[in-house]
Amino acid sequence: MTDRPHLPGAMPNAFQPGKGNLGPDELALVARRQKVLGPAYRLFYETPVHLVRGEGVWLYDPQGQAYLDTYNNVASVGHCHPHVVAATARQAALFASHTRYLHDGVLAYAEKLLSTFPAELSHVMFTCTGSEANDLAFRIAQAHTGGTGFIVTENAYHGVTAAIAAMSPSLGTGVALGPHVRTVAAPDPLRLTGDLGAAFAGAVQGAIDDLLRHGIKPAALIVDTVFSSDGVFTDPAGFLAPAVAAIHAAGGLFIADEVQPGFGRTGGTMWGFQRHAVLPDMVSLGKPMGNGYPVAGLVLQPRVIDAFGSRARYFNTFGGNAVAAATAMAVLDVIEMEGLMENSAKVGAYFRDALLDLSARNPALGPVRAAGLFVGAEIVQNGDAMRPDAVRTAQVVNRLREARVLISATGPRANVLKIRPPMVFSTDNVDYFMDRLETALAP
Amino acid sequence: MTDRPHLPGAMPNAFQPGKGNLGPDELALVARRQKVLGPAYRLFYETPVHLVRGEGVWLYDPQGQAYLDTYNNVASVGHCHPHVVAATARQAALFASHTRYLHDGVLAYAEKLLSTFPAELSHVMFTCTGSEANDLAFRIAQAHTGGTGFIVTENAYHGVTAAIAAMSPSLGTGVALGPHVRTVAAPDPLRLTGDLGAAFAGAVQGAIDDLLRHGIKPAALIVDTVFSSDGVFTDPAGFLAPAVAAIHAAGGLFIADEVQPGFGRTGGTMWGFQRHAVLPDMVSLGKPMGNGYPVAGLVLQPRVIDAFGSRARYFNTFGGNAVAAATAMAVLDVIEMEGLMENSAKVGAYFRDALLDLSARNPALGPVRAAGLFVGAEIVQNGDAMRPDAVRTAQVVNRLREARVLISATGPRANVLKIRPPMVFSTDNVDYFMDRLETALAP
Repeated sequence: MTDRPHLPGAMPNAFQPGKGNLGPDELALVARRQKVLGPAYRLFYETPVHLVRGEGVWLYDPQGQAYLDTYNNVASVGHCHPHVVAATARQAALFASHTRYLHDGVLAYAEKLLSTFPAELSHVMFTCTGSEANDLAFRIAQAHTGGTGFIVTENAYHGVTAAIAAMSPSLGTGVALGPHVRTVAAPDPLRLTGDLGAAFAGAVQGAIDDLLRHGIKPAALIVDTVFSSDGVFTDPAGFLAPAVAAIHAAGGLFIADEVQPGFGRTGGTMWGFQRHAVLPDMVSLGKPMGNGYPVAGLVLQPRVIDAFGSRARYFNTFGGNAVAAATAMAVLDVIEMEGLMENSAKVGAYFRDALLDLSARNPALGPVRAAGLFVGAEIVQNGDAMRPDAVRTAQVVNRLREARVLISATGPRANVLKIRPPMVFSTDNVDYFMDRLETALAP
Repeated sequence: MTDRPHLPGAMPNAFQPGKGNLGPDELALVARRQKVLGPAYRLFYETPVHLVRGEGVWLYDPQGQAYLDTYNNVASVGHCHPHVVAATARQAALFASHTRYLHDGVLAYAEKLLSTFPAELSHVMFTCTGSEANDLAFRIAQAHTGGTGFIVTENAYHGVTAAIAAMSPSLGTGVALGPHVRTVAAPDPLRLTGDLGAAFAGAVQGAIDDLLRHGIKPAALIVDTVFSSDGVFTDPAGFLAPAVAAIHAAGGLFIADEVQPGFGRTGGTMWGFQRHAVLPDMVSLGKPMGNGYPVAGLVLQPRVIDAFGSRARYFNTFGGNAVAAATAMAVLDVIEMEGLMENSAKVGAYFRDALLDLSARNPALGPVRAAGLFVGAEIVQNGDAMRPDAVRTAQVVNRLREARVLISATGPRANVLKIRPPMVFSTDNVDYFMDRLETALAP
């Protein structure tokens, strides 16, 4: 593979119209998309996938061919889980109120959800998307601290609202960062020297100092607790603590973005921040919360909402509606009943070991990082961890797609395989994946 | 009633904890809400309503008592419409993909939706909420115009993201407007003198001039096309055209916020802007789009997305997912099959005439404004349209609630009855409402 650099902020694994090997039906769909959805939409893969059905870890195209889903963390308890679908259908047929009437459903769910958090995190506010949850956290952090400065990692992604896109550098240089936003190097053990926690905290302190030097009071440090878009950084557990201490010492808040890692995926703990034994001031939730139903939220310590709550009200028409609550409750039920957090830990460890084993044998597969079923594996040149290979990563992702196994790539160098299957993934599914990955890694 | 002024930006019809006449079950629900949802949530009414079931225009409490819903425009084709519920359930059980895979559903819906717009508005982008749709419009308007100035009406509401809350003065003085936001007096025929269109355009031109005087290039004028939160201003149809011409002449865009008026509610036309024979550059959609399912969107002219699309991508995890598309398609089906736009026109006219008739007989009921089933009726003192009566408005709203008829109040003086029932509302429902309204208006 070549050293062709990955353009910063370009989307890894994006379809380029006019390329790929699409059949006539799919070409027609692509043409219709361009006509009605416009130029800001992106498809995955050199040859996009046309899907019509989902069940468990499998997705199906119109010909009935099965694809192993090793990527989609939204359908976290498995595509179209019958318990969740039934809850949605039942409540939608009964009542779909909003939160300005009294209804038990949203409260029962709020209480159940909060029971999975440390006691200090005892309020929850409901939105429809993770972007809205982070946007609300942004507003609350400003109201609470009186500050306006936000610190994020260099390739962070936190959402698409105007305020949050301006602190999501992974959207690329075409989307300007806000003047009050500072970026810090991600806690990449390959690139930060010395103790990872101390090094990351040092970077955060540098950003705090720079904000203050510009007369900007820090409002918050926000991180995805597995650093998904930065390349998946998981270990050693605990490395986040010094950075959290640094932002707190500066009077800022720590916001844990659990939109991707949350709801048991990291295994062993329900929330990614718990692996680091830190206590966030706010925690944003999203993607897997409703297994596909649009529901998200923000969990917070009551003291941080005092200032906002005294001045402003918050109403999200669909946020916390009765159907959202019933659906999200069903998801929590399934995670518990089927032991999916434990399954994530067990199958995730098996997955990591299989990747490490292959990495030891195959010089294209470099460092492997994982927390439960959130896995990042680097594609590198000649076994050199410091030589990322974006081109070969794209080749592997697309070869896997041809073998009907779905993953994608991430990281600032677009060389990290992003592996994030439904949590019902089995060790057999891992074997199936590994077999095809090894083939895809052939020269 | 007294002249006690309504506090600017205070929410009309908000419950005050500790007041009202709640039973023990409802008191317990209120206590649980305060414990888990925190201080930024609001309930409606002096005595909040506890609801558990919905069907058509009726909502039911746990005792099975029926409430006539004359307020909720989200359940626009009727609460829990079986055709819509079935579409949600069917698609949720089959597949709930996002827009990075090919799927016919989102395209079929996009095409059907766009067929209800003028040909120039030929792209649609999907979000989950109206707030997200307006936030996306905000980003696109800035990218297209290179400007940052936004013009809104004095009591506008466009959403709750940081960027959009900063241009939603109805959220109150606790939520700061952005430095690049200018407000203009709403097109209130009682308070603007002379020709309404010319007067409103004059106000918009003044805001444009003020932006330019501050070195701020205008990006857009955004209005709710029935000015819902300003007090519902509907006539004469066409009055918006000069203001649209003014913002266009200044190089800015016109964004029609159809989150509340859209989808046939205004009767005669599918979209509120069509009553004014203007052509928006972008149109934001929301609330009734999925009859309660969280789906929203932004319809736009392709030329305005060129700049944004060349620099940025847009992905909304749940926006345009297969279930959202199937649900929203079912809503369009029902609007068409049941002739709900026509019903809005017919029943809306009957409703307006009934209110006008009562207004002629009752000095507490002042000006009545309506477009289809979007109705605003002012409560005033002694038949004087210039003496709004917020206290009596609150009394009427709460008396109606005690009579199990749901509406709310709006406007900067909190004296406008906001009447916005599901579009399946019948003339019998109007009679039922009017009977109880007359009783509620008793001294």
